[in-house]
Amino acid sequence: MKSSHKEKEQFVFVLAETEMELIPHEILSERSVVATGKERGKKTSNLILDASYHHSAMKELKEGERRGRPDIAHFFLMMCLDSRLNQMGKLKTIIHTRNDERISISPETRLPPSYHRFIGLMENLFQNRVVPSKDNPLLRIENGWLLNDVLRSEKCERIIILDSDGTEESPEEIFESKKTARTAIVIGGFPNGSLHSELSSLETEKLSLGKEMLKVWTVASEMLIAAYNSITKP
Amino acid sequence: MKSSHKEKEQFVFVLAETEMELIPHEILSERSVVATGKERGKKTSNLILDASYHHSAMKELKEGERRGRPDIAHFFLMMCLDSRLNQMGKLKTIIHTRNDERISISPETRLPPSYHRFIGLMENLFQNRVVPSKDNPLLRIENGWLLNDVLRSEKCERIIILDSDGTEESPEEIFESKKTARTAIVIGGFPNGSLHSELSSLETEKLSLGKEMLKVWTVASEMLIAAYNSITKP
Repeated sequence: MKSSHKEKEQFVFVLAETEMELIPHEILSERSVVATGKERGKKTSNLILDASYHHSAMKELKEGERRGRPDIAHFFLMMCLDSRLNQMGKLKTIIHTRNDERISISPETRLPPSYHRFIGLMENLFQNRVVPSKDNPLLRIENGWLLNDVLRSEKCERIIILDSDGTEESPEEIFESKKTARTAIVIGGFPNGSLHSELSSLETEKLSLGKEMLKVWTVASEMLIAAYNSITKP
Repeated sequence: MKSSHKEKEQFVFVLAETEMELIPHEILSERSVVATGKERGKKTSNLILDASYHHSAMKELKEGERRGRPDIAHFFLMMCLDSRLNQMGKLKTIIHTRNDERISISPETRLPPSYHRFIGLMENLFQNRVVPSKDNPLLRIENGWLLNDVLRSEKCERIIILDSDGTEESPEEIFESKKTARTAIVIGGFPNGSLHSELSSLETEKLSLGKEMLKVWTVASEMLIAAYNSITKP
């Protein structure tokens, strides 16, 4: 990651408690999991959990109905990395996972739009900790990062948590004041429910884009565009 | 499709010359194609062409370097169907394909975010012409629709073609005038190059969102949000 970016990244988009993980040990010998391993020629313990393949096996898992959604991370990253905000060097993109890993993504990263290639890349990342290589660590995963610590380490003046229970504001209103503040935008990386993380030691603003249920990629694109407009439009 | 929607759909988003098709007959017996058929338990002639699986076989195809990109249609549809514009009943979404098929999508459709399920649904659509059923035709595919005819049949007052060679305007400027006009937004559903379709008998506006190369889903999300703002903001 180029240090020159550090100064300029005004917006830090964090996908929080993202439902992306390797197959949990409790279900390593389940039929659908073994089948995926065989099909892909990989050890089952090196596979990413995917609800669309492993749904039946996941019934036994705690919170099984919300886990195994790497597709949400894929959509989110495609929206962030291809956004104008990223093109102008003003965006830092971070994935925080359900198991308190932090995945740092270099803004120059070009992810595969093909889902199965994205999954292959993530499996490579979980196994090797950096991809494509140590010399060129476009993506890096580290253990032991509570969401609270991820946010604290970014030293943002504002931390905005998007939550359907929050105060309703339009994306434009959110950025109207404090146009120059370094701002974290936190979006939950799961299909339903709310954040579990303990954040009470941080000053956060809990905001909602409205009463309609919006998908993660809709929220992300609205916030990316509003953030871009807030610094480029008079 | 409910007829009540017909009156209200002010914006028609068309993904044009979309690179989505069944495996062309020239490459039905190629190794990668046969492998996909075996893996999925389907006849090769009922499979959707996918560059990320069939790349080597596609070298022999005319325009092989741009074909086989159903992922673009998937991203586009997810952005459109989950947009606020669609939620408020103001959006009609259409896919026009490289083989001049028209795919009509009911605004109530909830597509699978999982890519392989989306592909399964498209294969079902190409085979059965409607999905999920004739009684509930959320998606319908019809042959023999030139892009020109698709656009003409929508009876729009404005037809905006997004093209990197077009006149540069911001998404907001595009909708600033003629706020109440029924407007078609045409975005190319291919990874590179430009539209081939003959549209000279239609009055169109060729516009560009800027010099940077933007992905289809970035362009779609910017236009969806600007269209929504143009009718909801003072």
